Amino acid sequence: MTLVVQKYGGTSVADLARIRSVAARVKRHVEQGERVCVVVSAMAGTTNQLVAWVQELDPLCDPAEYDQVVSSGEQVTVGLLAIALRKAGVPARSFLGWQAGIATDDAHGKARILRIDPEPLRRCLERGEVPVVAGFQGLGPDGRVTTLGRGGSDTSAVALAAALRAERCDIFTDVDGVYTSDPRIVSRAQKLARITYEEMLEMASVGAKVLQTRAVALAMRHKVRLQVLSSFTDVPGTLVVDEDEVVESQVVSGIAYSRDEAKLSVVRVRDRPGVAAAIFGPLAEANINVDMIVQSVSRDGVHTNITFTVSRADLPRARAILAELKDQVGFERVDADDEVVKVSVIGVGMRSHAGIAHRMFRTLADKGINIQAISTSEIKISVLIAEEYAELALRALHQAYGLDRA
Amino acid sequence: MTLVVQKYGGTSVADLARIRSVAARVKRHVEQGERVCVVVSAMAGTTNQLVAWVQELDPLCDPAEYDQVVSSGEQVTVGLLAIALRKAGVPARSFLGWQAGIATDDAHGKARILRIDPEPLRRCLERGEVPVVAGFQGLGPDGRVTTLGRGGSDTSAVALAAALRAERCDIFTDVDGVYTSDPRIVSRAQKLARITYEEMLEMASVGAKVLQTRAVALAMRHKVRLQVLSSFTDVPGTLVVDEDEVVESQVVSGIAYSRDEAKLSVVRVRDRPGVAAAIFGPLAEANINVDMIVQSVSRDGVHTNITFTVSRADLPRARAILAELKDQVGFERVDADDEVVKVSVIGVGMRSHAGIAHRMFRTLADKGINIQAISTSEIKISVLIAEEYAELALRALHQAYGLDRA
Repeated sequence: MTLVVQKYGGTSVADLARIRSVAARVKRHVEQGERVCVVVSAMAGTTNQLVAWVQELDPLCDPAEYDQVVSSGEQVTVGLLAIALRKAGVPARSFLGWQAGIATDDAHGKARILRIDPEPLRRCLERGEVPVVAGFQGLGPDGRVTTLGRGGSDTSAVALAAALRAERCDIFTDVDGVYTSDPRIVSRAQKLARITYEEMLEMASVGAKVLQTRAVALAMRHKVRLQVLSSFTDVPGTLVVDEDEVVESQVVSGIAYSRDEAKLSVVRVRDRPGVAAAIFGPLAEANINVDMIVQSVSRDGVHTNITFTVSRADLPRARAILAELKDQVGFERVDADDEVVKVSVIGVGMRSHAGIAHRMFRTLADKGINIQAISTSEIKISVLIAEEYAELALRALHQAYGLDRA
Repeated sequence: MTLVVQKYGGTSVADLARIRSVAARVKRHVEQGERVCVVVSAMAGTTNQLVAWVQELDPLCDPAEYDQVVSSGEQVTVGLLAIALRKAGVPARSFLGWQAGIATDDAHGKARILRIDPEPLRRCLERGEVPVVAGFQGLGPDGRVTTLGRGGSDTSAVALAAALRAERCDIFTDVDGVYTSDPRIVSRAQKLARITYEEMLEMASVGAKVLQTRAVALAMRHKVRLQVLSSFTDVPGTLVVDEDEVVESQVVSGIAYSRDEAKLSVVRVRDRPGVAAAIFGPLAEANINVDMIVQSVSRDGVHTNITFTVSRADLPRARAILAELKDQVGFERVDADDEVVKVSVIGVGMRSHAGIAHRMFRTLADKGINIQAISTSEIKISVLIAEEYAELALRALHQAYGLDRA
């Protein structure tokens, strides 16, 4: 008998009508002979309200008490969904994190799952009941409730799917799958039937908000087949699977973009050993993530320009740190620009196909778009361009790689 | 070092401002050198919302799932109060029922506390921290969350005070103590400094809503000294204590009343053995509680009238059951009257003083108030009178027993 873990996010359980509709969906799967384990988030808006209360009392409060308060939202939805399922004639039982054997470390507010004792849920499944498990939470080593951080319910679902050796983990959300590009910009974007873990990870890390990076990485490690689909429709979603499950992969699977970029240029810095360390060391200490880095040798052979990107939120802090370094490191000035966007071409096929980068550069050049920085991974090429060209670049690249819907 | 358990009800933690004010109060006690263990209810209104959701999904839902949903309200307030306390500089830690070692039976929705393992709270107190415990909830034998029934937080507080051998259990509410009579009716009613468990039990059972009967009975059994007081003021409340702690007790402590009464008279029933059983048996089977019973022999020596009271909510069902019995039992008719009120005079001094009942009957007769039924216990005399005389009777009796404030 096939076992599937289904995870429903906050918008899917936002009110009693939505909860009944989730119960009806679970019932259909059970009637088709599947065994189902359900993971739910809190009702949309609940967690925000709880966090707001905590913040108002004390923004720097004890994270263990933060978890005690914030984890109550899922407690409501697991109980209500179990009631709705039983009312619909489906035997069901709710489980909080500590009741479902989910053991985490003690990093309250962003705990990691250490292990899951699958016995409580397995016994429930063997009785023919649907376990309804609170996502986002677990039990710390000191017997206190922990939470996994925002979006942690995806991680709960994947971890439970691994522990129960489920056939698949279905993540129900308010979009119906992963697209070749943002459909709001690229009208010819297509929904992908399948995508590899690696591609999904790259997509998530450069702006596609469908799945949490952490949940995808966990799925990849445990080879849990993920499906992203909508709880508002009945169409199949996108399967996120291992590379060998994607029989005929596209060379390029998607074009992603991120507006959360800001560019900094340290101009006319003396080119000597240790200068990069002198600049990036203090930034790292301040917990500022540096992404793309370009070093251009200047014409005089003595000075150089170092250009790099940070997230827009970090820009003011990064500028302040660089200003302090000016005399010590020795450079002329720092230029900053936050009207930039990072566009990425992603595909596992790149490993075996030459010319992918060339086509990207050619396509952008043909449209008169200047590339300000480049970074690459094994399955991704990212370029930094002026933000005003974002839509043009996305559409042009989408077409150039043959992704446009017919 | 004195240990006190403080219980705060829903109106005392209704919003963040009230929670901060509770934290300030706890802080004052800690600074005075007391050790404090706090028990809290859910924010006022929260439990009603949760119950409404459950009822809308399924009024006959699994009580274990009902408990899962409904117990989440206290989880929010324990965390928030612990945060507010720590912010105010008082070390504190929240505990849910299962974390505080509160073991109950499996009667979900109305569970009874079987035992409390005081170790988790004791360790917390020994670290110099204030434990903040979720009232109303515990852990069932099957590892599921249970609730103790409405108002169960009082019971949680008393049980914890007993387990921790606390000096006192303070119940903070929105009234500032127990009065000699309802101050809204009897303007000269006085707040009692002390009252015995037995008197408080009688008061609670005949309409004084200050404390749950169950919590008082538990306090009496374990000799836990209770104090009822307001979280909105700073005046001392009423101590509920063992009889030997009340040095000079009043003969009468209070005059209580209950409007939740309805009178039924079975008229001209044949007076033969077994007739009472034939009437009250079916009522008991229908779970209808019969209170005062009067049987009056009729003039013919053959027929009798049986008069008794039930709660107003049970009146329609009681009438329907009696109608069905008419032919079988044999009586002329059933008269019903729900415009009656039960007035009770309560005091442990009655045991050793004669003439208490006589004074009651005399006082009512002087005011022209007819007594329709009488019932007594060792420390209480109750009479049933027409509802229109309720206020007059209360004020007259209050004065007659010397309870009027000077």
